[in-house]
Amino acid sequence: MAELSVHSVLVTGANRGLGLGFVQHFLRMPKPPQWIFATCRDPKGQRARDIQNLVRKHPNLIIITLETADPASIKAAAAKVEEHLGGSGLNLLINNAGMAKPKTLEEETLEDLTETYTTNTVGPLLMGQAFLPLLKKAAQGSPGSGLSCSKAAIVNISSIAGSITSFIGWESVQCVSYRCSKAALNMLSKCQSLAYKEHGILCVALHPGWVQTDMGSSAGQVPPLTVDDSVQGMLKVLSSLSEKNTGAYLDWEGNVILW
Amino acid sequence: MAELSVHSVLVTGANRGLGLGFVQHFLRMPKPPQWIFATCRDPKGQRARDIQNLVRKHPNLIIITLETADPASIKAAAAKVEEHLGGSGLNLLINNAGMAKPKTLEEETLEDLTETYTTNTVGPLLMGQAFLPLLKKAAQGSPGSGLSCSKAAIVNISSIAGSITSFIGWESVQCVSYRCSKAALNMLSKCQSLAYKEHGILCVALHPGWVQTDMGSSAGQVPPLTVDDSVQGMLKVLSSLSEKNTGAYLDWEGNVILW
Repeated sequence: MAELSVHSVLVTGANRGLGLGFVQHFLRMPKPPQWIFATCRDPKGQRARDIQNLVRKHPNLIIITLETADPASIKAAAAKVEEHLGGSGLNLLINNAGMAKPKTLEEETLEDLTETYTTNTVGPLLMGQAFLPLLKKAAQGSPGSGLSCSKAAIVNISSIAGSITSFIGWESVQCVSYRCSKAALNMLSKCQSLAYKEHGILCVALHPGWVQTDMGSSAGQVPPLTVDDSVQGMLKVLSSLSEKNTGAYLDWEGNVILW
Repeated sequence: MAELSVHSVLVTGANRGLGLGFVQHFLRMPKPPQWIFATCRDPKGQRARDIQNLVRKHPNLIIITLETADPASIKAAAAKVEEHLGGSGLNLLINNAGMAKPKTLEEETLEDLTETYTTNTVGPLLMGQAFLPLLKKAAQGSPGSGLSCSKAAIVNISSIAGSITSFIGWESVQCVSYRCSKAALNMLSKCQSLAYKEHGILCVALHPGWVQTDMGSSAGQVPPLTVDDSVQGMLKVLSSLSEKNTGAYLDWEGNVILW
């Protein structure tokens, strides 16, 4: 299995948690990407300190302001990324930004449901639309006819909480707005895989495991997986994917999850 | 298999298509419900003429104004229904109101995605919350310990378009916002089935088939199923359900659909 080798990658929600973990792993690769675009809502804020510290040491790391729930912000980010890339395409789009509010079914409101869906589902759809030209360009500029994450791919960070078949964890956290948004994100991944296959773009939905992040710890228990282990596992999975895997729903160890 | 026998039923989006079909079938039953609540957004509008004509002939049919995307409208409707029921519960809530815009993935917008999700997914969730006290009351007032649609049930009219496993029809209509909203509605049905089981309420997601309605015909082909055949099939399925079926995803013939 070849190491994942990309010229450029963009990670949303990159200021902390899994997003920051992805950026750190890309920076540490023997052959790191020439361009790592790390997006977050407020690059100047307190919560972006870690990623700001990394930027000072790594000239290939660029912070881009992005609110994934705002179409205008997405378009502006795509234009900035295109400018940096100077004619080359974007190999890898990792839709990692996400949110969850641990509420019971009875506590859910129209506002929470809309906000969660916009961030977790609509954002990845709009990102795919806006970065499609750059992803296409990367696919066209890569040798070979098959699909791979080194060539051009959209990776949607989903969750096993979006699996209706598995349906786990109800007793500890109901989180209906989150479950619904991730089931919808899984459907979106399937749709993207079909719509973008002809453009040479692989699409996949990944469950990162139950990880020691702010979100993972919000249920009050300590999750079993570190960010490092989760990201390392996911990158290994991504490096192994080919056209037969596009549209798949996999966990950080490469196991297929039923929808 | 016993005929479905309910004291009261509420159908959303009842002015046309499947909603109107449900109302007509309930009215024609040998032992019709004492209360049939037919909700629509604009009871005085041109598109509500058929249901208005029925009201003149059937004193057990009540039209209720309801915008399923508006929490205040839902609460007002629940209060009106409670008033009519005068102390008894609501046996059957059929979340039928839905919408679809036949767009390609590239044409989808934040506004369309939000509108479709709000109508198709958030509406049924808020309806479940608002009518929970009346559904509970119906369950408590019915004999026996098991679950059934004659006792208390939430029926979410979903679609096979919400199945990621089956994933059909992509070549004729992409409709990503619709597919995502129905995958999310399926997840909601599963959540409702678990949350409401202890209250004696059965929850199920139904695929009505490809039916000759305005929505079904929007792809430019003639659907194979009449509204009558679809509704008759669904009512037969509903009459056969017990506690072992709560949380299921079934078509109008009772076949299990994979998520």
